[in-house]
Amino acid sequence: MGNKSITAVKGFLAGAIHCGIKQSGKPDLAMLVSRVPATGAAVFTTNKVVGAPVIVGRKHIRRGVAGACIINSGCANVCTGRRGMDDALEMCDRTAVALAHYGIAVQSCDVLPFSTGVIGHYLPMDRVRAGIAALTPLIGDSAEHGEAFANGILTTDLKTKTAFTQLTIGRRKVTIAGCCKGSGMIAPNMATMLAFVATDAAISAAALRRALRQVTDESFNCVTVDQHTSTSDTFAVLANGMAENPRLESASVGWRGFTKALGVVCDSLARQIAADGEGATKLVIVRVTGAANNTDAKKAAMAVANSPLVKTAIHGEDPNWGRFVSAAGYSGARMNPDQSRCAVGSITVFRNGRPTAAPLAELRKTMQLSEVHITLDIGTGGKGTCRVYTCDLSREYITINADYHT
Amino acid sequence: MGNKSITAVKGFLAGAIHCGIKQSGKPDLAMLVSRVPATGAAVFTTNKVVGAPVIVGRKHIRRGVAGACIINSGCANVCTGRRGMDDALEMCDRTAVALAHYGIAVQSCDVLPFSTGVIGHYLPMDRVRAGIAALTPLIGDSAEHGEAFANGILTTDLKTKTAFTQLTIGRRKVTIAGCCKGSGMIAPNMATMLAFVATDAAISAAALRRALRQVTDESFNCVTVDQHTSTSDTFAVLANGMAENPRLESASVGWRGFTKALGVVCDSLARQIAADGEGATKLVIVRVTGAANNTDAKKAAMAVANSPLVKTAIHGEDPNWGRFVSAAGYSGARMNPDQSRCAVGSITVFRNGRPTAAPLAELRKTMQLSEVHITLDIGTGGKGTCRVYTCDLSREYITINADYHT
Repeated sequence: MGNKSITAVKGFLAGAIHCGIKQSGKPDLAMLVSRVPATGAAVFTTNKVVGAPVIVGRKHIRRGVAGACIINSGCANVCTGRRGMDDALEMCDRTAVALAHYGIAVQSCDVLPFSTGVIGHYLPMDRVRAGIAALTPLIGDSAEHGEAFANGILTTDLKTKTAFTQLTIGRRKVTIAGCCKGSGMIAPNMATMLAFVATDAAISAAALRRALRQVTDESFNCVTVDQHTSTSDTFAVLANGMAENPRLESASVGWRGFTKALGVVCDSLARQIAADGEGATKLVIVRVTGAANNTDAKKAAMAVANSPLVKTAIHGEDPNWGRFVSAAGYSGARMNPDQSRCAVGSITVFRNGRPTAAPLAELRKTMQLSEVHITLDIGTGGKGTCRVYTCDLSREYITINADYHT
Repeated sequence: MGNKSITAVKGFLAGAIHCGIKQSGKPDLAMLVSRVPATGAAVFTTNKVVGAPVIVGRKHIRRGVAGACIINSGCANVCTGRRGMDDALEMCDRTAVALAHYGIAVQSCDVLPFSTGVIGHYLPMDRVRAGIAALTPLIGDSAEHGEAFANGILTTDLKTKTAFTQLTIGRRKVTIAGCCKGSGMIAPNMATMLAFVATDAAISAAALRRALRQVTDESFNCVTVDQHTSTSDTFAVLANGMAENPRLESASVGWRGFTKALGVVCDSLARQIAADGEGATKLVIVRVTGAANNTDAKKAAMAVANSPLVKTAIHGEDPNWGRFVSAAGYSGARMNPDQSRCAVGSITVFRNGRPTAAPLAELRKTMQLSEVHITLDIGTGGKGTCRVYTCDLSREYITINADYHT
């Protein structure tokens, strides 16, 4: 089959246009809609400074219903006070009104608003209003519409990020497809800035929420580009039931299979975020084992993944493993250096508190790959493990972020 | 007076040579010695992976006596197991033996060893042995000797970092002078890699330890270049009593004055480390107020100071204050965004949850200065405050750290 975009899911329409928020002329307004009322669940950033759309989204998702998502880029609508709240609410109102005009009944409180871009600026609402009116008649369910949507949500991303899977629940074929954006300001606790997953599965709101929470911790919350947790991060799943499978509850036989499939989609999206991190030339996969528990393992893996010294060594293709080991050492995780082990790719470089006689030529080859694997047993003998996706730190990251703005 | 180096302190000798650890031919072995037995105190890295010299230093300083410091650069002697321990101990032995030969009586267990450089390599002990023997007869108390020492402890630092002050205790003039190194792998919990302060004050070991602990938290532990806490960080103070002031105890009248003066020296050194951070073009001073307590203030200030997005914005001279505010938001500190305030230089850019109408041209001028001040009231109404020194993040940092090594 051809369409593997988000519109491959039965009953979902999408699209994107340029409405004039971005000066570049690139798409800056996107819409995702379910033809029929859908169950919704979402997780949001843990930053204490949050955008108005996050405040509105948190409120709207509470009922477990979501019919449409309206997304702009170029302006995050964060640190904008009461006026920002009014603007986010108006985006929902306008979307509901426009969709009603085309025969899709969505209440304003079932629309989720999303904004990303510069912080501290007000949305140009005249352009947003005209944009919503212009975009609504253009949405559709073709592959092109899905691709336009995946493209329309991007900011500094170089590539669209999509994932697709299918499974059978009670003899019915169920599709799960998603896309996301995120390249800078990427850190744990909603590592992605925005991720959308659509499914035609029939599932209760409680079961969907539980599935979402379970997969988020091991996918989006295990990605870091620059440890800067954004003010806008949101991951939303919409499930419209059009697959007509026996409706899933948390205790259903099919729930585990659905959650596993959702996890595959999210893991793929998370990995794509790291690989397309700002300025990235390599995907880095940090695995920690032998931690006292999973929390410690995550602390250690995140410290390694966030260390600028680790990230620059990898950029320089330098097997400077002392940086990897010492980052775990300051992470706060319990660690026993004398029982620790570090491997770069499949080559063990450090064992029992001492360097091994690893062949430098082989090591260098491993570092030259586009995917670099760092494995660290931190020697407590515990069963805690964690895997984190990140990328290298390049001059290009500086260029992107020193010149961006305002 | 001419000499403001560490040898300006009565009774201290210093010097440095190239012994062959570094291929560059730069000095890589340095020595600091008190003619008479000195009281010593030191704080060490909190990294769980520590170098052999840190393990030996912690043990040797326990008695509160320190007669000499022997320092090499180019090899950190970290992750080197039992052999590394033997090497660190031998550095102390050889130093004590060599000094005895020139009439200075120091026990091996009163020598502190220091090594910085690459992790995971063994020290070339033949060169170190020959180096100690060659260096010992060359130490002296001139300004040149002090400057050679300050220069000899450096690795990627571009500048020597020294500080000097004098005060009167009980009608006796007391001198405090120090120097330090540190440019990369700089993060809280012993932010400097190595700092040495010499004083001729007469002071008990307990009083010296207390003074050291008090000043460290607000100076070296409030610097960050790249949040990577090193495995070798050490700050040592040697006090040889030759000022002949009434000996200071923790409860003495003069103790506060001494501690304050020590704080001035350490604050100056800490600031110099940030200003000379790898690739730095600007010194950045982050001040947080209005926090629930000082711990929260430090969390928020450190999150701002460590955010690559903040550091690149400053490098690009871009007043992108959304990054400053949002970094405090994810720091874990309690924060009330609606009562928060952010100023760049003396210009308030964010107040009561909304942007101000700050003039962009003025703001840009402020960002072009070589010292950038970011002030953030995080709005809890509490009395917690913290000030952190850091620097911007430039392409040069990447160049230095992607090409360094192994």
